[in-house]
Amino acid sequence: MAKKNKTYKSALQEKDGVESPNSLNPNIAKSIKAKRKVQPSVAELVSGITSENITSLSRAITFVESTNPSHSKKANAIITECLPFANKSIRIGITGVPGVGKSTFIEAFGIHLTSLGHKVAVLAVDPSSSLSKGSILGDKTRMEDLVRNSKAFIRPSPSGTSLGGVARKTRETIILCEAAGFDTIIIETVGVGQSETAVHSMVDFFLLLKLAGAGDELQGIKRGIIEMADAIVINKADGENIKAAKSAKVEFNRALHLYPQKASQWSPKVSLCSALKREGISEVWVMIQEYTETTKANHYFTSHRNNQNKFWLLQTIEDRLKSNFYNSAEIKTALQNQIELVETGKTTPFAAAEYLLSL
Amino acid sequence: MAKKNKTYKSALQEKDGVESPNSLNPNIAKSIKAKRKVQPSVAELVSGITSENITSLSRAITFVESTNPSHSKKANAIITECLPFANKSIRIGITGVPGVGKSTFIEAFGIHLTSLGHKVAVLAVDPSSSLSKGSILGDKTRMEDLVRNSKAFIRPSPSGTSLGGVARKTRETIILCEAAGFDTIIIETVGVGQSETAVHSMVDFFLLLKLAGAGDELQGIKRGIIEMADAIVINKADGENIKAAKSAKVEFNRALHLYPQKASQWSPKVSLCSALKREGISEVWVMIQEYTETTKANHYFTSHRNNQNKFWLLQTIEDRLKSNFYNSAEIKTALQNQIELVETGKTTPFAAAEYLLSL
Repeated sequence: MAKKNKTYKSALQEKDGVESPNSLNPNIAKSIKAKRKVQPSVAELVSGITSENITSLSRAITFVESTNPSHSKKANAIITECLPFANKSIRIGITGVPGVGKSTFIEAFGIHLTSLGHKVAVLAVDPSSSLSKGSILGDKTRMEDLVRNSKAFIRPSPSGTSLGGVARKTRETIILCEAAGFDTIIIETVGVGQSETAVHSMVDFFLLLKLAGAGDELQGIKRGIIEMADAIVINKADGENIKAAKSAKVEFNRALHLYPQKASQWSPKVSLCSALKREGISEVWVMIQEYTETTKANHYFTSHRNNQNKFWLLQTIEDRLKSNFYNSAEIKTALQNQIELVETGKTTPFAAAEYLLSL
Repeated sequence: MAKKNKTYKSALQEKDGVESPNSLNPNIAKSIKAKRKVQPSVAELVSGITSENITSLSRAITFVESTNPSHSKKANAIITECLPFANKSIRIGITGVPGVGKSTFIEAFGIHLTSLGHKVAVLAVDPSSSLSKGSILGDKTRMEDLVRNSKAFIRPSPSGTSLGGVARKTRETIILCEAAGFDTIIIETVGVGQSETAVHSMVDFFLLLKLAGAGDELQGIKRGIIEMADAIVINKADGENIKAAKSAKVEFNRALHLYPQKASQWSPKVSLCSALKREGISEVWVMIQEYTETTKANHYFTSHRNNQNKFWLLQTIEDRLKSNFYNSAEIKTALQNQIELVETGKTTPFAAAEYLLSL
């Protein structure tokens, strides 16, 4: 090319290039690949987890979250080995609409707990998220102080499109965190779809984070959320907001009294806090301890966990029965036809169901 | 025996008996048996139903309610033939706790409707009842005037222990009643278990009957009932009760405003009545007509019925998938074992479910 340029006597000139060197040291690449192949064994990971090694815990959770069947098998083995070391914790669910200050609250709450000597794991259930899209908790910079705390472990929501799958992975991760010595498990969720119900069915204590607002505080609250709450904590109760927060407290207390007594015999409480100013945080922990005392004394705590386990057992079976049925190609086509026949009044829903089940 | 008595010369004497004649005329018995064997055909029943013959309707409903598989087959054929004549009605669900005056209200309401020329069928969903135990509506004497009314048809709850079965029979009976020219179908239910939800999913308009009471009117109302209601009618609003009824009305109106706008775009209404004095009854009917106009104009009426049909189609499939699975003897034993393993912390709910599904 240089020669060609010369023949045209152009002012523009191109230099001959040199071949760029391999940007990767082939020896180091080889050694990394070799290391990757030697995955830690189940026994190594279990021993790591039970001696509170965070690297082992993270690697085991990665197996739980994997969709690779051989990883799932390994995850199941690890979980089974960890079960005898699990269950010794309080599991707290925290929900609230975006903007209510969940991250700030969890950071303030987590730092308070670690200062009391607790080990705190923060997990999330967010079926709409994926690792690439930046899920809640994905941006750990929002909990800077807690991230740096050696007594805290923060893990973003596992990815997945089905709530069932995300919930299952989170439930299994709870067991691993407990086996790794975390005595307080916080599960954060945004109120997307049924995710609050899923989180409610995996925690001991369910906390609804709210903001003070106008008199129509109760407007638009998703059905059932207030009923599920063991506590409503009104955040940002500081400065000019204090008056509104206090009147919201009165209003929520009224709303809570409309519901029948809970099976736990715990009367849900409303409290105020300012996560930003770290005020009212220790009161929440005192309340949760009261709850634990009450429900351990009346044996609700254990029976509730047993019922949750039974619920998840049956739920998993029923989800799988349905997905096996509806995912068959034959059923997909036939179901569409039967729905049309029902809509045009040519068959009843029951006759259509019988037909589909007979295929 | 008479001779023996004579030997004792007792004052007591027994006359020789004569053999009592057969209480049944054998010829008539034969003819009845022969008649019973000649069951009406599907075509005969369908033709009877569509010409508004009540005997045909009742006999067809008996086939729907039967647990005999050959009867069910016949019932399915009748329903399919009746489908083109069904759907032209308003279906009204009525619920309320025992003592609220449901029977009195339905009688007053039904008589008002028949006086306007409507044909009214009154059905019930009560999974706890059986024909022998005396279900709601079983005691028709509670609706004496309506029972004697030729434009009314009253049928007690089909028997059955599963809500799914009872609900299915009632839904099919609605179709038969509509084909027999009944333009107003009232489905009564007591608030047992999930029966209100089942009734709500088979009617166009859902009416909650209440009594006026103390200030704690809202206390203890079953979750979700208020949300489902298109109208709350406060009964026994007469005499000394009127003041309390009026303040209950205010309170219920407040409660209704806590819920988000319904998909039907209908704002639920609260009204007062005295079923006993037959006051406020025509107002309820005016309200239901307004509802029908609104929801037919915005096309909710039809789309809602289509959604109900889809719901029942999927519900029936899912119920059957579950019952097929759980009723297997092998699963019953294995499930018990797995629950024990979960409760003693030897396996997770998910691993237990996988195991059971692999059997």
